[in-house]
Amino acid sequence: MDTEWVVRLEGASRPSEIVGGWGALNTLPAWAEDIARSGARIFVVSDRTVWAHWGDEVLSSLSRGDTVPAVHLLEPGEASKTIITSAECWDWLAAGGARREDVVAAVGGGVVGDLAGFVAATYLRGIRFWQIPTTLLSQVDSSVGGKVGVNLSGGKNLVGAFYQPEAVVSDQRLLLTLPPADFASGLGEVVKYALLSGESFMQDLERGVAEVVSRAPAALSAVVERCVRLKVETVRGDERDVGRRAILNLGHTVAHAVEHAAGFGRFSHGAAVGLGLLVALSVSESVCGLAPTLRPRVRELLTRLGLPTAIEGIEVGAILSAARGDKKMTSAGLGFVCLQAAGEPLWNVRVEEDVLARHVEVILS
Amino acid sequence: MDTEWVVRLEGASRPSEIVGGWGALNTLPAWAEDIARSGARIFVVSDRTVWAHWGDEVLSSLSRGDTVPAVHLLEPGEASKTIITSAECWDWLAAGGARREDVVAAVGGGVVGDLAGFVAATYLRGIRFWQIPTTLLSQVDSSVGGKVGVNLSGGKNLVGAFYQPEAVVSDQRLLLTLPPADFASGLGEVVKYALLSGESFMQDLERGVAEVVSRAPAALSAVVERCVRLKVETVRGDERDVGRRAILNLGHTVAHAVEHAAGFGRFSHGAAVGLGLLVALSVSESVCGLAPTLRPRVRELLTRLGLPTAIEGIEVGAILSAARGDKKMTSAGLGFVCLQAAGEPLWNVRVEEDVLARHVEVILS
Repeated sequence: MDTEWVVRLEGASRPSEIVGGWGALNTLPAWAEDIARSGARIFVVSDRTVWAHWGDEVLSSLSRGDTVPAVHLLEPGEASKTIITSAECWDWLAAGGARREDVVAAVGGGVVGDLAGFVAATYLRGIRFWQIPTTLLSQVDSSVGGKVGVNLSGGKNLVGAFYQPEAVVSDQRLLLTLPPADFASGLGEVVKYALLSGESFMQDLERGVAEVVSRAPAALSAVVERCVRLKVETVRGDERDVGRRAILNLGHTVAHAVEHAAGFGRFSHGAAVGLGLLVALSVSESVCGLAPTLRPRVRELLTRLGLPTAIEGIEVGAILSAARGDKKMTSAGLGFVCLQAAGEPLWNVRVEEDVLARHVEVILS
Repeated sequence: MDTEWVVRLEGASRPSEIVGGWGALNTLPAWAEDIARSGARIFVVSDRTVWAHWGDEVLSSLSRGDTVPAVHLLEPGEASKTIITSAECWDWLAAGGARREDVVAAVGGGVVGDLAGFVAATYLRGIRFWQIPTTLLSQVDSSVGGKVGVNLSGGKNLVGAFYQPEAVVSDQRLLLTLPPADFASGLGEVVKYALLSGESFMQDLERGVAEVVSRAPAALSAVVERCVRLKVETVRGDERDVGRRAILNLGHTVAHAVEHAAGFGRFSHGAAVGLGLLVALSVSESVCGLAPTLRPRVRELLTRLGLPTAIEGIEVGAILSAARGDKKMTSAGLGFVCLQAAGEPLWNVRVEEDVLARHVEVILS
């Protein structure tokens, strides 16, 4: 099967084309052929785990005759998302004589995509960039929309750029090799997109949980496509994240704070997002008139998707203190994303700390 | 005296306003007042030499009551233009809690501006950025147009971004403390702009050499303004340097190669540009029909401006070999900028190496 869907992001600083579906890697030879014909080259950035599973297939798909892409492998994990690792990539590109018309292709999850995208955005002030996301989280979220960057010791994603990938090749077949916890992590973002999208996506997801969890091809491809379409629509009007794009942070203020307060690694990002969504819904009931029927449905959905709905051993104070350091907090206070109903988000809602504290209790067991 | 001229760059990714003239620093309190009123803060990046001359005045101009900008000083010189130094700046901003609405203000020459601009372009994916250029080279060239970046061990400016400063405050009075060699270095770029502009600027410069060299206020301000206007016009239509902006590289392929072959530091950038211009004019006579009367005039102009017109002890081969590594060379060959006449540049002219070799001889003594 070839790709099932194509979504185009136009009107942004650079156009971006996302091709997806079960078997979408089959489109790589055609992309590589274009590159080879123009005399350009491909520089692949991946990590050792991803490469062990998919390296041979990706490499042969991107090779034309004797022309084989250069490959640079990172150690898997968030610890690779640093300026030091970026510097190694820049030096590798310089040593390989990479030029503006050459392509950096990120093959991996969010760490690889964010890092390689930042490297591509800044090498020679921007060379060509492709994303080949290999995790559910990167397929539904991080590979689309152009946010790239690395961490500082002072915080995550503090250094980066807005840089749209020219192409995103999103093959859901790659998700078969994901460990269950990593797969579940992506599902947290899927629930977020369903809540932002509205009742239709929510109900389809509720009905289709079993197929999604068993990674059935058609169900997975459809879910990723829906998330990507919503993300592209949201990014289109607000690429640089000064307005409506903020709705994509639904659940994330508390998610980041939970990850921080628990120590990074204890909760997957998706698990933390699920918890953050529950708090955001509770806040929304209180300040935006959200009907109280939605939150129990989301709680049940998270459980069926294998995600936690409560945490133990963390104090409210630790979560609030971490939220205070979030970069979405401007000098004017904490901007929060709420829902009036499924599909009706409000952003930049001012929420006082004591109000937030009360609602954080809904995830403390 | 307040500012004498204002040039606006519109239609680029971000608008940029350049205010200039003798005493333009007098506009800083008004800029700082706007910042203070919005609750934002200013983070100044400078170097120790510049700061010793102008730090007190800049700091008091940018302070409002008890609100004094944070200041981060670099060691002067090209060796500071690295990823390591950028990382120190990012960490400094993170430690200071800098937010998107805060301003990074670069106070210095090209090294400070390029580095601080790259830091501002990438911190939180881009925070506000001002340039306060303190050298002739940065006033006429590097502070305008949004090219920012740092060096790798593999080459200069290999990592960077296109990021327009919101404001450039260009005070020619600051040029009074420049050492003669640094001042002369900027004059190489001035000659380039006169050649790109046409006979009117060329003849005015030839007539006004004595005033410019003695740093007379009106002459200096007028020369900088003309260069800035031409640069802004050129950048406006081609911010990302994929077309006509290439004309700004007139003389630079050979200039970079000379700097590289001679060892960085032996020739100032402006001296190398002057030499590169002579080679470019000679090539232009041969391949673009440039009248042979222009080159002797430029040679005389360079001499009167205190810039060299010939070099000793460097082989043609070393210069060509360095030119081959230039990042303006694409896989299709070396793109060269020629002149058909003063004010009539052609870019992307294919020049074979043996042709270039013959013309490089005009600067070998």
